[in-house]
Amino acid sequence: MGGDHGCVVVIDGVSQALQAHPEITELFVVGNQAEIESALAKRPGQDSRLRIVHASEVLTMEDKPAQAVRKKRDASIARAVDLVKQGKADAIISQGNTGGILAAAHLKLRTLPGVDRPGIATVIPTQENNFVLIDSGANIDCKPLHLLQFAVMGSVYAREILKVKNPRVGILSVGTEDIKGNDLTLEAFRLCKEVNLNFVGNIEGYDLFKNRVDVVVCDGFVGNIVLKTLEGMAKGIFGWLKAELTRNPKRKMGALLAKEAFKTISLRMDPEASGGPLLLGLNGNVLKSHGSARERGIMNAVRVSTEAIQNQINQVICREIADANERLAAAKVFPQPAAVA
Amino acid sequence: MGGDHGCVVVIDGVSQALQAHPEITELFVVGNQAEIESALAKRPGQDSRLRIVHASEVLTMEDKPAQAVRKKRDASIARAVDLVKQGKADAIISQGNTGGILAAAHLKLRTLPGVDRPGIATVIPTQENNFVLIDSGANIDCKPLHLLQFAVMGSVYAREILKVKNPRVGILSVGTEDIKGNDLTLEAFRLCKEVNLNFVGNIEGYDLFKNRVDVVVCDGFVGNIVLKTLEGMAKGIFGWLKAELTRNPKRKMGALLAKEAFKTISLRMDPEASGGPLLLGLNGNVLKSHGSARERGIMNAVRVSTEAIQNQINQVICREIADANERLAAAKVFPQPAAVA
Repeated sequence: MGGDHGCVVVIDGVSQALQAHPEITELFVVGNQAEIESALAKRPGQDSRLRIVHASEVLTMEDKPAQAVRKKRDASIARAVDLVKQGKADAIISQGNTGGILAAAHLKLRTLPGVDRPGIATVIPTQENNFVLIDSGANIDCKPLHLLQFAVMGSVYAREILKVKNPRVGILSVGTEDIKGNDLTLEAFRLCKEVNLNFVGNIEGYDLFKNRVDVVVCDGFVGNIVLKTLEGMAKGIFGWLKAELTRNPKRKMGALLAKEAFKTISLRMDPEASGGPLLLGLNGNVLKSHGSARERGIMNAVRVSTEAIQNQINQVICREIADANERLAAAKVFPQPAAVA
Repeated sequence: MGGDHGCVVVIDGVSQALQAHPEITELFVVGNQAEIESALAKRPGQDSRLRIVHASEVLTMEDKPAQAVRKKRDASIARAVDLVKQGKADAIISQGNTGGILAAAHLKLRTLPGVDRPGIATVIPTQENNFVLIDSGANIDCKPLHLLQFAVMGSVYAREILKVKNPRVGILSVGTEDIKGNDLTLEAFRLCKEVNLNFVGNIEGYDLFKNRVDVVVCDGFVGNIVLKTLEGMAKGIFGWLKAELTRNPKRKMGALLAKEAFKTISLRMDPEASGGPLLLGLNGNVLKSHGSARERGIMNAVRVSTEAIQNQINQVICREIADANERLAAAKVFPQPAAVA
């Protein structure tokens, strides 16, 4: 119910996803039954694996997430999470309010054993690689141990979903030297060195586009600002380029001749390509699809969720978090609350 | 002494700047006398306003700034700051280690009355406007009152140097609503509302490229990450574009026809155009020129420093900081130390 383009686009997207994924046994569409049925009526030949689950309410962008989840018991996101809680579904995809999804999933599913906080893992494409930015907005205030857990979860994501063999993990800071950072990142650095990660140390904003790292670890305040800055700048630069390239016939002709160059980049940078961020660390697979996603975005959201299920990333996360905790205990590195808590 | 391209480039840059600025009465070049003289010997017709001040030491990138400033008493940055302290010069320009410049200037000049912390003000060009990012790296940990002071100083910069009539000031956060942010930004928001600023509230990364704001306020940890992310992304995208545009003859031909479009953008985005960030809040004008700056960058550094002197921005900052403090006292908004301190 949370998509910008309404129910029909979602139905079209999931119908195509079902064709692409014969391994899916059931796909629940949760929301206003009448709307869903009217969208389905527009498509001939309904897939028999598609089930409608009615929900009478919707979380809006104006709702305060935690409150709303408790009040709107029949919200579509709550009903979707219930399906996972009851074991009827293996993953949730939502285009709604990120805070609402997090609140519903956190409240009903809880976190995985050993994980304190769920983290939002967003895949960012660059010329030479993709990197995972975690946490890109779930946790405004973090402790060093949370950053360590994001590092472990992001590394599992890069390995299991992005198929990076030995993901390079870096902490986003203000300099590459060990001594650069705030209390939070300095302590997280100390923790990350002790566990089984391909930890490359601190990285700077410059490094994001130099294929130096596969997982970028930061708190959700910094991560959210970086994510939106990247998205804003990409839009800004390409909008600017378009304005300049259409300023006169000569430039237009040049742009036409070079159009494949722009197309290659825009296809790689298309936010619909990644399907949307996974909310890692929850006791269930949860994917946030962009509100603006169209059919292709929905299809990719289903693809990534299917991969998360098939690769059992939550089981892998549990194992690796347990291993990290053992190593921290063995190294007698007891995480201390940072001054910036 | 801190430039990547050596002394000759600096001498060429300042010589051109002297021609462009007849109002400059003396320009001191501080550093190794032999090197400076050999660079000067390569240029015919030395400007009589140019003075050499010998310094036998240099702060390096490896030096720990505060320590090094105390130890290396004859470092070129220390000697340059001394000239301002003694009233012989009105502004300092350095291409060296930012930490070293800050440490020397802070130690010897102290901050302006009412200003707790100097902030680095970097000008970022976008398609439709330029905005000032403050603090872009001087202060890793900040209190709300520091952010308020950055807001006031950034606003003065935008008005006096960038010639923006009524600069729009925003706090960089994770959402535009009042309630979005961490303890630091929430409290800074409360303070900024009370003083004489054109305060537009919270802004997000998206807003940076939409001409919504002229001054972007954040702590130095976030600001430094955002700055380097922007610089890294600009290089990344244009490098990628170049690679795609030179992949085959057809694209190359297109790029050639459209080259004016790329040139317009790259000229606007050129880091040398702004001259480099001002370190605001110090009892003296201090400009950090890029280590990689060439003649044009040096010339622009001199131009901006001259404008800072002519517009007496430090006097204006003093007045406006005093006014802000009065308003905070009158409004009985006593700044509280935030949980994130």
